[in-house]
Amino acid sequence: MAKPRIGFIGTGVMGKSMAKRLMDEGYPLHIYTRTYEKAEELIEAGAYWKEKVKDVASESDIIITMVGYPDDVEEVYYGQDGLMENAKQDTYLIDMTTSSPEVAMDIHDKATAKGLIAMDAPVSGGDIGAKNGNLSIMVGGNTEAFQQMKPVFNVLGSNVVLQGEAGAGQYTKMCNQIAIASNMMGVCEALIYAESAGLDPETVLQSISGGAAGSWSLTNLAPRMIAEDFSPGFFVKHFIKDMGIAIESTERMGLDLPGLQLAKELYDKIAEDGEGDSGTQALYKYYKLNS
Amino acid sequence: MAKPRIGFIGTGVMGKSMAKRLMDEGYPLHIYTRTYEKAEELIEAGAYWKEKVKDVASESDIIITMVGYPDDVEEVYYGQDGLMENAKQDTYLIDMTTSSPEVAMDIHDKATAKGLIAMDAPVSGGDIGAKNGNLSIMVGGNTEAFQQMKPVFNVLGSNVVLQGEAGAGQYTKMCNQIAIASNMMGVCEALIYAESAGLDPETVLQSISGGAAGSWSLTNLAPRMIAEDFSPGFFVKHFIKDMGIAIESTERMGLDLPGLQLAKELYDKIAEDGEGDSGTQALYKYYKLNS
Repeated sequence: MAKPRIGFIGTGVMGKSMAKRLMDEGYPLHIYTRTYEKAEELIEAGAYWKEKVKDVASESDIIITMVGYPDDVEEVYYGQDGLMENAKQDTYLIDMTTSSPEVAMDIHDKATAKGLIAMDAPVSGGDIGAKNGNLSIMVGGNTEAFQQMKPVFNVLGSNVVLQGEAGAGQYTKMCNQIAIASNMMGVCEALIYAESAGLDPETVLQSISGGAAGSWSLTNLAPRMIAEDFSPGFFVKHFIKDMGIAIESTERMGLDLPGLQLAKELYDKIAEDGEGDSGTQALYKYYKLNS
Repeated sequence: MAKPRIGFIGTGVMGKSMAKRLMDEGYPLHIYTRTYEKAEELIEAGAYWKEKVKDVASESDIIITMVGYPDDVEEVYYGQDGLMENAKQDTYLIDMTTSSPEVAMDIHDKATAKGLIAMDAPVSGGDIGAKNGNLSIMVGGNTEAFQQMKPVFNVLGSNVVLQGEAGAGQYTKMCNQIAIASNMMGVCEALIYAESAGLDPETVLQSISGGAAGSWSLTNLAPRMIAEDFSPGFFVKHFIKDMGIAIESTERMGLDLPGLQLAKELYDKIAEDGEGDSGTQALYKYYKLNS
């Protein structure tokens, strides 16, 4: 049986690796991205380039979006040449952007009314996870749609979990970012304290990384902080976007998350200092400046 | 060669397991603890009970202290019947209590002046680590003393690291607690957000525990929060003590650690609500009350 045609919109660092994996699995791939150059490698590998979102829409059975901000998602879905107007009946629309739960729910409702099947499926695992197909994929949508798309998700991720109805994927991704936000402060504060106390931070990591203070960030980002390597990884500006989405939804829920609030404030400060395009470990610079 | 005689002061949950391991390795053990009942198991196993700290001091080549608070440490070291007055020349004094770096440095200076050899060597790894001898031991003291005591540390820990001169062990333990403090907020906030969003927190953990949000606390304490199991583990009151010590030293250093400050405030609140004897995962109750 021929594999369904996949449309892929947004071939940035993450999207490109994900699209490549789908091609390698034999899915015919139609792509669109704002900056043509970011698509060249995929086109050379056999992907079909489309000039407009609507041209992707008209030739795909499944459409994956992996763009930047909720506004970009809305443009791709709701714009005049967008997916909602131009996708064929029964097309699966999967937004893998980290975006707002509200947008995801809204897309789902509008899509359903049009005979389209929408899911939100943000990921974690970074560019390396995207390349190796071992992303964590957090899915919101109905069970049948999830089952139908499982083979596609399995090409991209090794930890694919249906979290609930539309929006649940985005809510779960927010949980992920919320846990990271406060922990980043803890990692930075442990390091700056070590330095101020005259300890060797690398030797301190030997004592504390394997125990109750241990975390992915302590193991992976603290050594970069010590080496003053602030290259992304995950951009400060994108992390700020995510924390902003999370805070917006807490306000709607009447929920007070002081750790998240504080982390967002500190990240806003370093972004104002020009660190938006640095990796999230650049939070350490805030502490260096204030010690 | 006969093994050196070890004095062990403070046989609470941690101390008892550590003392037991030393006996099992063949070290003659002289013990004192404030509450006799806490020593009974060790006495039955062959430890020599002493009525006073000074009686331990006079019959030991190495003295390990594992008590509660810096005040307790000072009493054991500086009291009239204490170690400083009563230990024999060249005795090794090892304080494994989590205590203040300043107290450790002061003990070291006074001990050196008296011909005694003092080290600070706080641990992490909890009661299970103490039982199994795989604690992380963070040592402050001079290199030669560390080498001499290495065989003893190796009975108790699997990750034994000399962090620097006297006080460095305590400073390192503070780094450990600082990293934990903010991370605990992140873990609680991720869970309460999940609940408020109508997600199943356990399913959320499946998606996020293995990735960039992952941490020891998320893996080990979040499931207890979900199950409303707030038994200790590690006491809230002791964690507050540790954070207090850390904050005291940041004030001396002129260092501002807003995440630590915030975590301490939240823990103070739950202690006021009667959670001092709960495990640190009881921070989740703060968020439950405020959601």
